Amino acid sequence: MRQDYLFVEAAIPFIAALIPKAPKSHRVVLGKAIPTLESELELFRERARVAGVTLEDIVPTLTNHAYVQFLLASAYSRSYAEAFTVLYVAEKAYYESWSVVRAGIDRGSVWFPFVDNWTSEAFQGWVEYLQRELDGLADAVGAAERERMGELFELTAKYELAFWEMAAGGESWPGLA
Amino acid sequence: MRQDYLFVEAAIPFIAALIPKAPKSHRVVLGKAIPTLESELELFRERARVAGVTLEDIVPTLTNHAYVQFLLASAYSRSYAEAFTVLYVAEKAYYESWSVVRAGIDRGSVWFPFVDNWTSEAFQGWVEYLQRELDGLADAVGAAERERMGELFELTAKYELAFWEMAAGGESWPGLA
Amino acid sequence: MRQDYLFVEAAIPFIAALIPKAPKSHRVVLGKAIPTLESELELFRERARVAGVTLEDIVPTLTNHAYVQFLLASAYSRSYAEAFTVLYVAEKAYYESWSVVRAGIDRGSVWFPFVDNWTSEAFQGWVEYLQRELDGLADAVGAAERERMGELFELTAKYELAFWEMAAGGESWPGLA
Amino acid sequence: MRQDYLFVEAAIPFIAALIPKAPKSHRVVLGKAIPTLESELELFRERARVAGVTLEDIVPTLTNHAYVQFLLASAYSRSYAEAFTVLYVAEKAYYESWSVVRAGIDRGSVWFPFVDNWTSEAFQGWVEYLQRELDGLADAVGAAERERMGELFELTAKYELAFWEMAAGGESWPGLA
Repeated sequence: MRQDYLFVEAAIPFIAALIPKAPKSHRVVLGKAIPTLESELELFRERARVAGVTLEDIVPTLTNHAYVQFLLASAYSRSYAEAFTVLYVAEKAYYESWSVVRAGIDRGSVWFPFVDNWTSEAFQGWVEYLQRELDGLADAVGAAERERMGELFELTAKYELAFWEMAAGGESWPGLA
Repeated sequence: MRQDYLFVEAAIPFIAALIPKAPKSHRVVLGKAIPTLESELELFRERARVAGVTLEDIVPTLTNHAYVQFLLASAYSRSYAEAFTVLYVAEKAYYESWSVVRAGIDRGSVWFPFVDNWTSEAFQGWVEYLQRELDGLADAVGAAERERMGELFELTAKYELAFWEMAAGGESWPGLA
Repeated sequence: MRQDYLFVEAAIPFIAALIPKAPKSHRVVLGKAIPTLESELELFRERARVAGVTLEDIVPTLTNHAYVQFLLASAYSRSYAEAFTVLYVAEKAYYESWSVVRAGIDRGSVWFPFVDNWTSEAFQGWVEYLQRELDGLADAVGAAERERMGELFELTAKYELAFWEMAAGGESWPGLA
Repeated sequence: MRQDYLFVEAAIPFIAALIPKAPKSHRVVLGKAIPTLESELELFRERARVAGVTLEDIVPTLTNHAYVQFLLASAYSRSYAEAFTVLYVAEKAYYESWSVVRAGIDRGSVWFPFVDNWTSEAFQGWVEYLQRELDGLADAVGAAERERMGELFELTAKYELAFWEMAAGGESWPGLA
């Protein structure tokens, strides 16, 4: 959960770095996503207080840090359609993962408000919006760029999988005790 | 006014490009500035409809286009404190300029809502916030970076002055009829 | 000439900023362009010593500064094919302009080595390479991106024209004595 | 060795992305580093042919991909002094690691030219140059930035360690068979 907090926090610079490259029709939506992410961080802090968990001085795991660097580097150095692919896969995976959690979690759990947030109709609508727009972008680009979108789709899924493995199994930096 | 619309529109990618470099304490404020700018664009579109002016297909003047490129290039290639200096001077100039306009404009003018927006207490508070934070950043950096902040202060003021000269005098691209 | 020095100096960060976005087949060529530009700056400094001109503390004109910001902002926020269009037009214009100068300049002029450099077969080959690659990029992208390449083609030409107008007529910053 | 090839290849966009932020005194040196890296890639390809290893279609491991994203994201979103810290640690670690290898490798090994390259006087001089410049940058920045430089020093060392662990032990993406 503490690693999740870092990840949501890191989504803000990622989305911000997409905005200057975005078509004007995406700017309003991406711009609104930033205050939404800030509200989610506030939800984290509030739930952490209830659960007695501190969110200060969290050291990111390799996988978490790496995933965040991947988001940022994609936003800066890849085309908009390629970086948007990364955004879509990350959000889609979040939605799917929490939907699985929803099926198994006690509604009285201190973490239930998370489940509620990332399986909400609003979040589902956001993911569907991203999917429609991704399809439009994929139609508009040339063949070589579309292939790179596919590579990034797969790569983001691999990071996502590594992230959940880390969350499940614990992880330390290789070569450090 | 149409050139102003382009300029406000361009402030959005500028501020977005600052966010990944910003200290966490600035992120919430800068993140909220983006939807605020979107509301200002909506105000432009609404006033333009009232005044019968179109905001489609505006060709930026050299000075306007140049100023926007300067904002973006600063956000990407300069340090945060340097790029923040550019933000401060641009916003401060906006506040001061509209304060002068306020003194001379008829309250019934179709453009009065602009004056009201950029001389409002909210906007004044934003400019004062930027000034306090700029002072803090200037205290925290080394001497060489502080000198570059000074150079960018002056340079932004020169762009701002050129922008108002253009607005007053009309302008076309040099070498074109 | 002093403004030209600033401009050539500014081409280095522009090309550097293109490299992370470039296809691998372009990296070697763009990477070699940077030491070439450094040699050209050395030629400037050598010629300036001969002519008794100082290259210290040159203040860029609005047009020169603006053009440089446009290059940088394009490299950072536009797609590779779009930013490559800007590179091509700037280099092509350089070649064509110096070819015109060549026709009229005395071979004993202190500036003749410039003419010789930018009308050389090597430089002509570079411009032809850029043109072939630009054609390839234009074929590979989607229709919307190709249209933006066209807009940037025209915009770069407008900056280039403004640059030569400035060089011919002198220029100060608008609103400053 | 194939993962190393990918990593050296990725150092090119990293250094290129540093150039627009670099002080002018660093530009010539960083600019020359790019063709040097291209020569190193050529050495890889030549040795690979001798050893009968293919360098086509290498899939980066998580750690390798992550390290590269970390380099790029640092170059884009961190201050120059911070990103330069990352460059220094990566190069220093390369030098130290190959010095250890040198002590144990047979001079007739097909890989000995690598050892020779990265333990050469030229490479040692480069690392020493980086160290001197890093010290100068650390002196020039404010206290908060110096602290961030320290954090990046440690983080880069952690990535470097993970990279050598991966090279030693093999690695696949977590969660994939």
